[in-house]
Amino acid sequence: KMLGRVLCTVLFVGAFPSPAEASQGHISVVLLGATGDLAKKYLWQGLFQLYMDQVSSGHSFTFHGAALAALEPGQRLMFDVLKKLSCPPDEAPNRCAVLKDQFLKLSQYHQLKTAENYTALSREIEALLRQEGLKEAGRIFYFSVPPFAYTEIARHINSSCRPPAGAWLRVVLEKPFGHDLQSAQQLAAELAGFFREEEMYRVDHYLGKQAVAHILPFRDQNRQLLDPIWNQHHVERVEVVLKETVDAKGRTSFYEQYGVIRDVLQNHLTEALMFLLMELPANVSSAQEVVQHKLQAFQSLWGLERSSAVLGQYQAYDSQVQEELQEARGHVSTTPTFAGVLIRSDSLRWEGVPFLLTSGKALDERVGYARVLFKNRAYCTQSGTLRDAGHSQCKPKQIIFHFGHGALNTPAVLVSRNLFQPVMPKDSWKEAEARSDLHVFGQPLSDFYMYSPVKERDAYSVLISHIYHGRKDFFITTENLLASWAFWTPLLDSTSRQPPRLYPGGVENQHLLDFEMVSGGVAFTLAEPAELLNPGGQMPSDFRAIQSKFRQSPLVSAWAEDLISQLASDMEEAAVRSVARSGQFHLALSGGSSPVVLFQRLARHHYSFPWKHTHVWLVDERCVPLTDSESNFLGLHRHLLQHVRVPYFNIHPMPVHLHRRLCVEEDRGAELYAKDIAALVANASFDLVLLGVGTDGHTASLFPRSESGLEGAPTVVLTESPVKPHQRMSLSLPLINRARQVFVLVLGKGKHDITTLLSRVGHEPSKWPISGVSPSSGQLVWYVDYEALLG
Amino acid sequence: KMLGRVLCTVLFVGAFPSPAEASQGHISVVLLGATGDLAKKYLWQGLFQLYMDQVSSGHSFTFHGAALAALEPGQRLMFDVLKKLSCPPDEAPNRCAVLKDQFLKLSQYHQLKTAENYTALSREIEALLRQEGLKEAGRIFYFSVPPFAYTEIARHINSSCRPPAGAWLRVVLEKPFGHDLQSAQQLAAELAGFFREEEMYRVDHYLGKQAVAHILPFRDQNRQLLDPIWNQHHVERVEVVLKETVDAKGRTSFYEQYGVIRDVLQNHLTEALMFLLMELPANVSSAQEVVQHKLQAFQSLWGLERSSAVLGQYQAYDSQVQEELQEARGHVSTTPTFAGVLIRSDSLRWEGVPFLLTSGKALDERVGYARVLFKNRAYCTQSGTLRDAGHSQCKPKQIIFHFGHGALNTPAVLVSRNLFQPVMPKDSWKEAEARSDLHVFGQPLSDFYMYSPVKERDAYSVLISHIYHGRKDFFITTENLLASWAFWTPLLDSTSRQPPRLYPGGVENQHLLDFEMVSGGVAFTLAEPAELLNPGGQMPSDFRAIQSKFRQSPLVSAWAEDLISQLASDMEEAAVRSVARSGQFHLALSGGSSPVVLFQRLARHHYSFPWKHTHVWLVDERCVPLTDSESNFLGLHRHLLQHVRVPYFNIHPMPVHLHRRLCVEEDRGAELYAKDIAALVANASFDLVLLGVGTDGHTASLFPRSESGLEGAPTVVLTESPVKPHQRMSLSLPLINRARQVFVLVLGKGKHDITTLLSRVGHEPSKWPISGVSPSSGQLVWYVDYEALLG
Repeated sequence: KMLGRVLCTVLFVGAFPSPAEASQGHISVVLLGATGDLAKKYLWQGLFQLYMDQVSSGHSFTFHGAALAALEPGQRLMFDVLKKLSCPPDEAPNRCAVLKDQFLKLSQYHQLKTAENYTALSREIEALLRQEGLKEAGRIFYFSVPPFAYTEIARHINSSCRPPAGAWLRVVLEKPFGHDLQSAQQLAAELAGFFREEEMYRVDHYLGKQAVAHILPFRDQNRQLLDPIWNQHHVERVEVVLKETVDAKGRTSFYEQYGVIRDVLQNHLTEALMFLLMELPANVSSAQEVVQHKLQAFQSLWGLERSSAVLGQYQAYDSQVQEELQEARGHVSTTPTFAGVLIRSDSLRWEGVPFLLTSGKALDERVGYARVLFKNRAYCTQSGTLRDAGHSQCKPKQIIFHFGHGALNTPAVLVSRNLFQPVMPKDSWKEAEARSDLHVFGQPLSDFYMYSPVKERDAYSVLISHIYHGRKDFFITTENLLASWAFWTPLLDSTSRQPPRLYPGGVENQHLLDFEMVSGGVAFTLAEPAELLNPGGQMPSDFRAIQSKFRQSPLVSAWAEDLISQLASDMEEAAVRSVARSGQFHLALSGGSSPVVLFQRLARHHYSFPWKHTHVWLVDERCVPLTDSESNFLGLHRHLLQHVRVPYFNIHPMPVHLHRRLCVEEDRGAELYAKDIAALVANASFDLVLLGVGTDGHTASLFPRSESGLEGAPTVVLTESPVKPHQRMSLSLPLINRARQVFVLVLGKGKHDITTLLSRVGHEPSKWPISGVSPSSGQLVWYVDYEALLG
Repeated sequence: KMLGRVLCTVLFVGAFPSPAEASQGHISVVLLGATGDLAKKYLWQGLFQLYMDQVSSGHSFTFHGAALAALEPGQRLMFDVLKKLSCPPDEAPNRCAVLKDQFLKLSQYHQLKTAENYTALSREIEALLRQEGLKEAGRIFYFSVPPFAYTEIARHINSSCRPPAGAWLRVVLEKPFGHDLQSAQQLAAELAGFFREEEMYRVDHYLGKQAVAHILPFRDQNRQLLDPIWNQHHVERVEVVLKETVDAKGRTSFYEQYGVIRDVLQNHLTEALMFLLMELPANVSSAQEVVQHKLQAFQSLWGLERSSAVLGQYQAYDSQVQEELQEARGHVSTTPTFAGVLIRSDSLRWEGVPFLLTSGKALDERVGYARVLFKNRAYCTQSGTLRDAGHSQCKPKQIIFHFGHGALNTPAVLVSRNLFQPVMPKDSWKEAEARSDLHVFGQPLSDFYMYSPVKERDAYSVLISHIYHGRKDFFITTENLLASWAFWTPLLDSTSRQPPRLYPGGVENQHLLDFEMVSGGVAFTLAEPAELLNPGGQMPSDFRAIQSKFRQSPLVSAWAEDLISQLASDMEEAAVRSVARSGQFHLALSGGSSPVVLFQRLARHHYSFPWKHTHVWLVDERCVPLTDSESNFLGLHRHLLQHVRVPYFNIHPMPVHLHRRLCVEEDRGAELYAKDIAALVANASFDLVLLGVGTDGHTASLFPRSESGLEGAPTVVLTESPVKPHQRMSLSLPLINRARQVFVLVLGKGKHDITTLLSRVGHEPSKWPISGVSPSSGQLVWYVDYEALLG
């Protein structure tokens, strides 16, 4: 009843919406968690801003705060918040006061707890609109509630609160959207049971920050100037940074479950990075194009490894956790509060460019920015002071999207004056005055063209406006979310038990959190203080690998990642030795999944591997075309060959596909390969053969209970696999046993049984072909990870 | 007579050589050009230093100044110089005075003009030694004479002045050693008629400069620290620089013939660069190992193109030339007095690292250095001042070999303190005091470990000592010299007619000589002042290519280099368009020499070419193995494929080598290729076919007076060439004419006749197969350079 009256009053107030405009229909905004922190701090103010902006749009509004609390206390709590809503400085005070009064009248508290509560809310909205003769345009449900409540609320909205046909539903979701890929998938699947993709607006409030939101428009509007330099040849590095001075005190119950990567990197910093990294869509306002390009950009990223990140934790964190979570005194948390992560892309555009994402709590300053630093490509002939006069090309060149805080204390876009003067939209960005006292990244502000927003707007107001306008490009789609989790989850998994470096906090951190790029990853620049005191301690390059014997041959064992590192180093050493001896290195590689990580490691960490002098042979191949996804060669090509420079002539795929048919005996592919080996490899003795072991004891494509390829066989043979694709080509045991070195790689729990068995049995190749591997004059080394060895 | 007496006196003077030591034998030093500038300024002082250092070595010495002047005036002139010889500060004044007196007595002037003069000199030496009962150890002839006199003098020495068997001959030669590759080869051949390689000591006085000479020892002594960072992954750029404040006044008769590249870059700066760039020999004192590694380094360099250099000339130069060479007032010299050159290496170690060589006269300071700047691989978490405190990893990291002059005004080796503390030989290099007032490349000296020589020595004294000790590693071998000329001559040729940028000189130059790396080459950063006034002028990227018609098809014509640039750009455009349309680009390429420059241009300048989506096919192939030097594919691989990332599967060499035999009809290679084309190329219509034209009108491997491959032929055919290797495989005319685009490239004077003929004849493929190229629905474009078009 009260609401009805209010609405009438508003609709017919003097200068405000005329009945004609009102025909746009009515929008009901429901804020779930109306008395929570986020609502208090940003959301109600954002809704009020929306009302001020859109009061003349022709839409009418009602605002429904909701929470679990009963009507009376909830209402009081909520109106206490609403009364404190502030008028923006650019708004005429009179108009604002009137609008605030109206906004309060259009707002109402609801207890939303049971299914009946939701039904009642929906009925109320319908009754009101009927009463006022208004058409319903749509409903916005803003979830400002903890994630465990999502499913329940979603179910109620879907079953009881959907608007009638013709009106839209928009549900706005706040992070966290899961905890890792699996939980995010699960949550997404649940939500998909209640809402259509286009109904969901997942908020990452960074997309509402003016400097972040302007990255794509900036790239678009300066397309011509950026196009020649927005690539690996001109960009030295990209940094996306959010530094905080506060710590997690008071929030550890949340923080302890998430940590800095989930809290900041997986979402905010990744989104900003993607705007820089993605190929520029033809239409940057098309949500669909943007998300497609963003997904492609995710595809181009190298997988993160443990060595991709450095992690820290401020010293007081553990005691805060103990106190707030009532943990025992001895409790040790490994939750990182600082992370520096190196991200790389495989794309032609960005190959080789480091993208550094950094965030932390208890640091020395509060600031957020994305910075593109360009390579210095100039030589300035003049000396010292003359060189630096004016806008010399030898000064650093950079583009900075300054999110806020820091010395500038405003969102800003900065472009070095020796780069270009950017095109900026005059209605929303203005050139800022040069403040000669300020320096940004070591340069005076006068070295930059600097722009700041004409009107500084809070991220939530911006996003609430975008929700109203249905601008889905400012929100995270399910695909986008899952792609991001898919990217981050392996790092979260591999670092979950890793103790972070402790840091004192603030300026005391000194250089303790500085890190640098080291052979494909990052590492702290300073050794751990403990290690500084103990210079005899182990260097990071010392592997803690078990060195022992297995089947009378040397055994190297470690956790998988270390084992692969060791194996890759040993392979490089073998290659260098071989090239020094004979000018070339004949390497025969196995396919399958185990070597993939090895191939990646070789491609990414072994810059000095003598690829130019390496011949790559296949140990075995499936009888499928080389470009078939089942082909061993395709895997080898994808993970290794396309990243290194092996000459075309030195690459020797098995000829399983001759005359456009597969492994036909009369095409003599096996003989052909044997002849190639005989012609190129001295004594048909490979310098190194890399083998794997199947759970049935097979190696190469030599299978149990089959005599083909065993003693007495020709060098290359066609074989039959018990699993599809059945037809195979393989090096034979006699050929393998001619090699100078044979390395056998065995990874994973699944190989524990066969590993145990092999440790006991003798030479029985017809039962277990791998047991027949015994180089006649060469060396055999086993690389078995702890999981395979110890189960 | 007098000499005899002097020698006796010297030999028996108190503390000096005893008769036992004298048994090492006698050395005669003959300085040709004894009264010239170099002799006055450095050589006599160097010889005196040698005498002071070696007077107790057991060798006895005589010094013979020689010139064309008659005895009396020559003698007077020479002794005027000798009297002014100075005592080094580290020598006891008494000892020095005694030794100087002896040195004057051991020195004698000779007129050396005729063959008889040389015979007489030799006899005198022999007589003296007989008389004193001395064994002859060797003779040093130092050529400090203009190059035109070399051959004559060399002939005389060889025929009349060689020492007797058992004694050595060392001839010391001063640059210039030729003017370009051809003249250097000629001079080397002439000298080789008179002297053995080990007898010749070619001086590059930079090899005597202490900081230059220490580059290799530094790399050797710091091998372990440098090894991980001395490569493309860590080095951002290398600069080798010699800046002079003086101009060429008074020396224009020499300078006008040489210019800055021949005067400084080809020799001094190249030698310093090679010490940085070459692989480090196991033994850095082995002259043979050093020169072998240096030659390999030369092999690894990219050929220089016109765009590899920026050239300048100080404004007063032309009038100085007019005055000194009595040239007419309108005379315009294009001799450069300033050059900045970008050098790149193909080696795995240095791929992608720019090496910048710069030298000029009339600049703002006098300084010489080689500087290795490392990449900044660190992220420093602290802000501003905290970041830069101490030896932060975020400060620049560099190693500088400071040759001399400049602010430091001493030879020095500087290593950033955040890099490492270098190992330096304590007997010859000492740590220098930090002078807080000085900055080097924007950093205070306190940021460096700085070392300077314990004893500063003039380059010529050092070299004369090395000649005495027979240390050939400090001199330029013939091979080394020719490799350097082979490297520089193409740039000298291609820039010989190019007007250099004029610069006022000194600090007035402002940023006029700053240059930057632009798509594989360098360009001045500021447009020409004239162009600044005329912003409507042409941009450097505008090709001044003639656009017209040839045989009813579009014709693009220009000088070869511009034509190739245009063609490469057009190819990239076609590729991008095709990939946008169909996801792939099928490109068929011809072999031969014309496309080599095109391939290099594509590999080096076209970073955005969509290679990943390009299929590369061959237009024709010689029936030789793919790794044979005659193979078209090998050339394509060497100049293009090994530099870009075409997936293995997308590379389609012609199957001329099946079953280990060449183009045997029954192996059906042509059919196989035709099938591959049919399977992969939609409609067997290539997106682009690149053709050439032979002087006989052949194209692909389709030859005149042969019907094979013409109308009605299968898509791929075996053909017979009139020249070896006779057997070929070729795309046929019908297949070529199915292409969407056909580009025909015709280069050079040798093609003028066929070009003229083709402009007149009609469609007569059996006479001139190229005349049959006429895409049925595609486009044909002719790219003909001015030489082929205009003769």
